[in-house]
Formats: sequence, structure tokens, C-alpha cells
Amino acid sequence: MYLYLIRHGIAVDLDPLTVDVTASDEFRSLTKIGRKKVAQVADRLAELELRFDLMITSPLVRARQTADILLDKQLSYKLEVSDRLKPAGTLESWLLEWKARSNNISTISTVALVGHEPNLSEWAELFLFGRIEGKIILKKGGIIGLKFTDNFKIGAAELACSIPPKYLLS
Amino acid sequence: MYLYLIRHGIAVDLDPLTVDVTASDEFRSLTKIGRKKVAQVADRLAELELRFDLMITSPLVRARQTADILLDKQLSYKLEVSDRLKPAGTLESWLLEWKARSNNISTISTVALVGHEPNLSEWAELFLFGRIEGKIILKKGGIIGLKFTDNFKIGAAELACSIPPKYLLS
Repeated sequence: MYLYLIRHGIAVDLDPLTVDVTASDEFRSLTKIGRKKVAQVADRLAELELRFDLMITSPLVRARQTADILLDKQLSYKLEVSDRLKPAGTLESWLLEWKARSNNISTISTVALVGHEPNLSEWAELFLFGRIEGKIILKKGGIIGLKFTDNFKIGAAELACSIPPKYLLS
Repeated sequence: MYLYLIRHGIAVDLDPLTVDVTASDEFRSLTKIGRKKVAQVADRLAELELRFDLMITSPLVRARQTADILLDKQLSYKLEVSDRLKPAGTLESWLLEWKARSNNISTISTVALVGHEPNLSEWAELFLFGRIEGKIILKKGGIIGLKFTDNFKIGAAELACSIPPKYLLS
């Protein structure tokens, strides 16, 4: 099984005049250049025939918009939303949710998660090493690919790729 | 400082009739498809304006030929050969050699090493974590990028990228 961790594209800054900062962070949308870069990354990945059997996104607007672009480019035909991919989510809580749907897991060989930093690079390190090292740089619009040969669990992954967006732009 | 670890391209198999297997491994050359893929990777990296202040290659033919293609594509203007990058070389021995030339190091901000597996992915893990984890997949013609912010030493790197060649082919 392959798991791809994709960070959302460049989003607008928080409006300093907004009173409820927490709410406003959830609604930050991609900038024009952020949308353009994500679309270029998606085009390149589609050209390379990368496809996800399932894509799961954080509900935050900048992540959903990123996932929608990947969907538009037909990198996947199936998109779900999970609160576990919010910035406050933990890998353990997402894994519990994932296992609860186990009746459908066996047919899924390639999954993409669209979310936030530092979560995604930390999840990658947990899948690779069983601990967080804080060593993997994941830029906005970047992608980490993990390969699981036998078991899909913490500590069982190999690093297939870690690609900054600039290597995927046209 | 950035350190890029580049694995040689696809090489011809060992001739099973060769008596001296050790010698013959040193002289294995890139296949036609190996040359072509390395040239495409080099073209793409040049297009992305990646440049190395210095490139150091293993003396084995398949590595030298890979480095020569990168040089032809003007990814660097300076190529050296180091026995420390042979399959039997260790990171510690290469670091000793590197420090011995320290009078020139301060002007070098981007270095590429062209060599072999499992050495290069293990060196990457040593630079990242201080130990070998055996978790990074580095395919022939692939590239690992390490970023050193303060010190150039074991355990001090961050992973800037790990890119299989297919993401760099045209």
C-alpha cells in the first residue's frame, strides 16, 4: 500500500482585524498563485499516472480547495473529509477511524491525505520510524510518499519520495 | 549548505562468465536507457536551475558516467573523484577527507555526491538522524537533498527532498 501526504497550497494570511482567530483560520482560502501551483502539481502528477483509490482531506478550506483541485484533475474519483486531519488531529485518532472502516480497506492500495503542517511530516516520521524527528521538510503543495510492504502501521513504512512542489511545476 | 546524493543510472549486469567479479563490477557501464534517463533527469534539474558548486563521484564507471552527464548538462563546472564514494566507503572516511580540504569549504554552498546504494541512503540517514534506519528508497538516477542550517555534520541535516527519477523524466 502507498500513502501520499499532501500539504495544502499557499493560502491567504489571517486578517489581523478578525476577532475570532480560530474560526478565521478554518476559512482561509488558497491564493490565486496557490491555486495555480496546486493545479500545476496536479497536472504533473496526473501526467505521471499517479492515481489515488481514495483521497481524504482536512475540512479546513485551504485543504478542501487543494483536494478539490486534485479531484478536478482526476487524481482520484473519491474524496472524503475527516476531522482527524485538522491541525489538532493526531495520527493515532486517524488510524482508529481508518481501522473502523476496515471492511473496505482491502480494496484500497493507494491513499492520499490532504492536510497541514507540522502534522503531515510528523505522521510520515511516525509511520517511518515510530517517533517524531522533526527532520522532514514539507512545503505547501509538496507531497510525501510512503510505501508499506507488509503491514499498514506505525514504524512499518519506507520513504518512497518527498517532493517539493517546484520539482512538479511546469 | 545543501548536499545532494545522486545514485548512478541503470548499468549493465555483471557478465557471469567474468572470472574476476570484483574488477568487473568496477567497470560496469550505463546502459543506453540508463544514459537516456540520467540525461533527462539532468535536463530537468538544469531547467529547475539546480546547480552544484562541486560534484564528487565514485570512481566506478557507472557513477563516473552519471557524473559526466550531469557535468555535460552544466549542473556543475567542477567534478572530483573520491575513493570514499566507492561501495566500500564509509561516511566517516569521506567526512575526514572533506574536512582535510577545509580551506576551500567556506565558498561551497551546494555539493553533489554521485555514488551507490545502500551507501547513499544510509549516509542520508546518518546525516539526518545519526543512525542508519534503512527506510529511504533511492532508485537508480534518483536524488536525495539534505539541508544543513548551522553545522555540516552527522545528525544535523533536514530532508529537503527525495525524488525518484520518474518525477524528473520528460
